[in-house]
Amino acid sequence: MTAQTETTHWILTLSCPDGPGIVHAVAGMLAEHGGNITESQQFGDPYSGRFFMRVQVESAASREDLVSAVTPLAARFDMTWNLDTAGRPMRTLLLVSRAAHCLVDLLYRERSQHLPIDVVGVVGNHRDLEDIAAFYDKPFHHVPVTKDTKPQAEAALRELITGTGAELVVLARYMQILSDEMCRDHAGRIINIHHSFLPSFKGAGPYRQAHDRGVKIIGATSHYVTGDLDEGPIIEQDVERVDHTHTIDDLVRIGEDTERRTLARAVRWHAEHRVLLDGHRTVVFR
Amino acid sequence: MTAQTETTHWILTLSCPDGPGIVHAVAGMLAEHGGNITESQQFGDPYSGRFFMRVQVESAASREDLVSAVTPLAARFDMTWNLDTAGRPMRTLLLVSRAAHCLVDLLYRERSQHLPIDVVGVVGNHRDLEDIAAFYDKPFHHVPVTKDTKPQAEAALRELITGTGAELVVLARYMQILSDEMCRDHAGRIINIHHSFLPSFKGAGPYRQAHDRGVKIIGATSHYVTGDLDEGPIIEQDVERVDHTHTIDDLVRIGEDTERRTLARAVRWHAEHRVLLDGHRTVVFR
Amino acid sequence: MTAQTETTHWILTLSCPDGPGIVHAVAGMLAEHGGNITESQQFGDPYSGRFFMRVQVESAASREDLVSAVTPLAARFDMTWNLDTAGRPMRTLLLVSRAAHCLVDLLYRERSQHLPIDVVGVVGNHRDLEDIAAFYDKPFHHVPVTKDTKPQAEAALRELITGTGAELVVLARYMQILSDEMCRDHAGRIINIHHSFLPSFKGAGPYRQAHDRGVKIIGATSHYVTGDLDEGPIIEQDVERVDHTHTIDDLVRIGEDTERRTLARAVRWHAEHRVLLDGHRTVVFR
Amino acid sequence: MTAQTETTHWILTLSCPDGPGIVHAVAGMLAEHGGNITESQQFGDPYSGRFFMRVQVESAASREDLVSAVTPLAARFDMTWNLDTAGRPMRTLLLVSRAAHCLVDLLYRERSQHLPIDVVGVVGNHRDLEDIAAFYDKPFHHVPVTKDTKPQAEAALRELITGTGAELVVLARYMQILSDEMCRDHAGRIINIHHSFLPSFKGAGPYRQAHDRGVKIIGATSHYVTGDLDEGPIIEQDVERVDHTHTIDDLVRIGEDTERRTLARAVRWHAEHRVLLDGHRTVVFR
Repeated sequence: MTAQTETTHWILTLSCPDGPGIVHAVAGMLAEHGGNITESQQFGDPYSGRFFMRVQVESAASREDLVSAVTPLAARFDMTWNLDTAGRPMRTLLLVSRAAHCLVDLLYRERSQHLPIDVVGVVGNHRDLEDIAAFYDKPFHHVPVTKDTKPQAEAALRELITGTGAELVVLARYMQILSDEMCRDHAGRIINIHHSFLPSFKGAGPYRQAHDRGVKIIGATSHYVTGDLDEGPIIEQDVERVDHTHTIDDLVRIGEDTERRTLARAVRWHAEHRVLLDGHRTVVFR
Repeated sequence: MTAQTETTHWILTLSCPDGPGIVHAVAGMLAEHGGNITESQQFGDPYSGRFFMRVQVESAASREDLVSAVTPLAARFDMTWNLDTAGRPMRTLLLVSRAAHCLVDLLYRERSQHLPIDVVGVVGNHRDLEDIAAFYDKPFHHVPVTKDTKPQAEAALRELITGTGAELVVLARYMQILSDEMCRDHAGRIINIHHSFLPSFKGAGPYRQAHDRGVKIIGATSHYVTGDLDEGPIIEQDVERVDHTHTIDDLVRIGEDTERRTLARAVRWHAEHRVLLDGHRTVVFR
Repeated sequence: MTAQTETTHWILTLSCPDGPGIVHAVAGMLAEHGGNITESQQFGDPYSGRFFMRVQVESAASREDLVSAVTPLAARFDMTWNLDTAGRPMRTLLLVSRAAHCLVDLLYRERSQHLPIDVVGVVGNHRDLEDIAAFYDKPFHHVPVTKDTKPQAEAALRELITGTGAELVVLARYMQILSDEMCRDHAGRIINIHHSFLPSFKGAGPYRQAHDRGVKIIGATSHYVTGDLDEGPIIEQDVERVDHTHTIDDLVRIGEDTERRTLARAVRWHAEHRVLLDGHRTVVFR
Repeated sequence: MTAQTETTHWILTLSCPDGPGIVHAVAGMLAEHGGNITESQQFGDPYSGRFFMRVQVESAASREDLVSAVTPLAARFDMTWNLDTAGRPMRTLLLVSRAAHCLVDLLYRERSQHLPIDVVGVVGNHRDLEDIAAFYDKPFHHVPVTKDTKPQAEAALRELITGTGAELVVLARYMQILSDEMCRDHAGRIINIHHSFLPSFKGAGPYRQAHDRGVKIIGATSHYVTGDLDEGPIIEQDVERVDHTHTIDDLVRIGEDTERRTLARAVRWHAEHRVLLDGHRTVVFR
């Protein structure tokens, strides 16, 4: 009988009420399983009183062994936790409308292996982007949405999520509002890109609003979707400088760059289990 | 008889309804006065239909001659205009409360000749910053403000503006709200620094609001003061990246840097006649 | 007989030794042709003593009329000048190797009408990116380059430039060095993207060099190609923050974003005639 | 007998060859001393094979107890380490010449308690900044440096470092080159601000060099001083956008802002024990 020498890189994320001994207990548990910590980050939020940890560890232990080891710890410290293998592409469903820039960007990044996602399908309420999905060999699902067919459309969407086994849904400029129920059922698993520097310019036409107000910098915000529109926990924001010469169309064009890179970062961090929820705020272990 | 060889660098700024022939007329008028244009910027706003121009010109002509030449042009094109000598420090009154960073910064920049202003006095509703004013040899005026004494305080302020011949008033984290009348009477001549990326987080405690919302970037906004609080025309904005580890106190500290450099830029551009009003927006000829 | 009412938007760019009367003369010439100036920028470089101007003008005059009017002016002031219609897509040839990000980006921007270029072909020294060219309906030319076949490859390249009528050649991560003669013959018409913040990290492997040096910010530089490698006039640069956790591969990935947006800006500004050469520096009328 | 309830916030930093068990051993040692970890960061450098850790811990243990506990661990893992109390202002000596901006900035930040340093003196090779030191109640030492008096000047400097008990020396635009011996003797304890984005534009006149090259972004670099000029480990860099209109004087003015904020960050991180040396690179636990 020879020892198993094959090791796996694991990512363990957890949050719990803050208190002494958590890091020691986790590090001890991992040491008992021959784990070598390659990356570790902790954060204690003085406002919420919660503790957050993300640890990347190389170990020969099996998933079952690790789960068995974490479970009593989780009970002891009242932890919410997750265990995944590092680098595993996250099954992701992309929802789009007519604007192509975020879709093109995410699919290109997946193909060039710069984003650990496995796009399992593209859903469009219009057919405009079907050819892009085809170029990247992705199934395209046309799910039109009108006022009257909204419930049916959402039902179709739910079926697609279930059918594809999607773990993450990305609203890549989807422009449709999901129902409260849908948001609740997939809390922390739907990421949106809003084309403004939230909380400025919520709602429709943010670039027009930004132009009207005469701001000198525009931005984009990627956040988890909640029932409260444009109020979900922010994952990432970025900005670009503009000036009086820019028309609304210029802002739209400039904003596309900001949107796609903001969204790509948020998706990357989520897929790498770097984003933890802290109430309506996020802890991002970059 | 010898020709006058002494020349002056002039800055002419103007705005008027857009239409053909304006640049040609202005350039022609300047050429007639032996003017050599060293810097010139124009902008036609397709939204407001207004035309804006800033021209820096070297000429041996006297102020009287130039004014006489501009006056009929201004009448013909319905211009709002201003003529000043380039590099002349603008007489500026600084209003402060307890926070020192903007005051220290502006006074340092004036002394190091990096900001074309002549600070004619510092007004504080508290005495905390009196020693800084003294170090830079600036008269300090203590004008306390309470609910009951607000009208008297504003009267004192008006007297100081008149008495010092101040052309510009800078609210360097003054923390007091000026009356509508005061704002109207000095429209386009009072600059404020707001410690948020407007229109996000208007009103009090913007860093607390920013922390609560969990934004990933904070900012500052320098704008002209109007009766409509935090709604005046924006001159300049800047931002800084933050993350979940930053407390509200951290945001305050990080924000100080953003505030002082945003305010310094706005004051510089105003003092160099680079900022023109376009309704509730600004044209900034940087 | 009726007046011609059809107007064209023209872009006139020029540079010449600085001196009085240039703006007036140009504005006068344009006024005589019923031109309405919609955008105009000037710059006098105190170091080189040269004057630069870009003016966008709406006029019913024909190209012939305008050329006839500019010609004597150009002679009088010793001008280098160019006249083009605004918004005309510039015929552009893209040279690539194996890295897809710049190609994907430029083709996407052309298709979404966010970049005023007409890509007349894609040349690759490898076949890797042929499918991307095909997706965007662009002819792909495989021109392999080895030490021995370099002259033939360059001859093929010259033929392609002539055959397609390309006005601009973009090295979209082409990774091959052009001959001095080629650079000279197309001076100011070949744009390269270098994957470092020049003049830091010239030559090969800039991200490895950047990692070795432990810099905290990486960048990209878009410049005109000259015989002097990585020394051509810089059009645009941009940067991204990095830290000690980033591997060389991370820098490559992060850098791709910086490269593509830096290159896209440089190409846009060139195609809109916003870039003028001032010796080995550039004037960019953004 | 009552238990000691007074606790201290400690910062423990360490680096050692990477391997399994380090985090567990450190966390265990701290747990044994009733330590509650409030902040912890680790990094394993795949290039150098070294492991780095910074842990902030609240504990009632005495310094002696902690030192006794760390010592055997350090021996076991071959650690370089340091233990300090959190928030203790670091004794700092500022070296200046004629440029005031960095001095004014650092002293202001100390006074406003935004920088955990205790400036124990200001040394100038000129007397220009004596009044600023006086305003902040800091002893000013005039140590002129000429070619002939260099050794004497350095001897005086060494005496001041010893006499004041300075732990950190900051070259706040000092403009003098220290001897190799001086650099070696204070390795990792002298911080310089170089007014370029290193490794671009080493040596004298970096802004003139930047202007000549026509770069579109300028920067500043704060680094530890080594005998190899402008080659020391980089702690922080920052940049600012510039364009063709900026003269060399403009670059100097714009650069001052970048310099002072880059230097202030580097000093803060060093004073908070966030900077660890990894060969000629730095690990910065921000």
